[in-house]
Amino acid sequence: MVTETCTVNYVDHVGIAVKDIEAALVFFGQVFDTPPAQVEELADQGVRATLIQVGQTRLELLEPLTPESAVGRFIERRGEGLHHLALNVSDIGGKLRTLENKGIRLVDKEPREGLSGSIAFIHPASVFGVLTELVESTGP
Amino acid sequence: MVTETCTVNYVDHVGIAVKDIEAALVFFGQVFDTPPAQVEELADQGVRATLIQVGQTRLELLEPLTPESAVGRFIERRGEGLHHLALNVSDIGGKLRTLENKGIRLVDKEPREGLSGSIAFIHPASVFGVLTELVESTGP
Repeated sequence: MVTETCTVNYVDHVGIAVKDIEAALVFFGQVFDTPPAQVEELADQGVRATLIQVGQTRLELLEPLTPESAVGRFIERRGEGLHHLALNVSDIGGKLRTLENKGIRLVDKEPREGLSGSIAFIHPASVFGVLTELVESTGP
Repeated sequence: MVTETCTVNYVDHVGIAVKDIEAALVFFGQVFDTPPAQVEELADQGVRATLIQVGQTRLELLEPLTPESAVGRFIERRGEGLHHLALNVSDIGGKLRTLENKGIRLVDKEPREGLSGSIAFIHPASVFGVLTELVESTGP
């Protein structure tokens, strides 16, 4: 289904690039009282990642597996910090076609599996410099 | 009250630095179906700003009033994009003392009035490169 807009359900998560994900997890827990979270390795994305629930949304910590990975190059260029904004949507496939019809530049023309479900990235050049991810939740 | 942690209620908003706030508002509305929002000028912070509700959290668009303002220099240095992460807390004054006791570097040692209520910024050097804002909601 191609709809007129890419309606957003809520902010799925905010991605943060860090050098040491365990240190960051301990920091957020000890300082901001966030719940424990499991770290997973996503080899195809070149990161170790974890999702910390904070209210309706989550903080996604990303540690590069290698300096040459996308997140590794981000940290090399800009330092640790805010990396991307993820918006939860329904029917991600239809939403991507809607965006393409609007002339939005997509990094992923088709959804792929990510830590949060079915995901696709929109190029920051189309969203005021914000690397934007669409997420359609799967599972519980 | 000084507590052991700076417990976070939820992600209050995600700040995005843009060059043209009206264009960004139209874009988010037309593309992501976000509700209309009013732009306000915050002269003391050197920005025009607006808060777009997206589920429980909000996107705060920030347009610099001058190139020499903090947000103007941010855009000059890094381009448009993700600027800060705001966490909603209760008892912001107590939370700031908790953070100070933990050795966290604060930009604002005392809360001040912002667009979202009573606010204070934590230095990004203490939060893995993330300029972090605490917000205690006031008003409706």
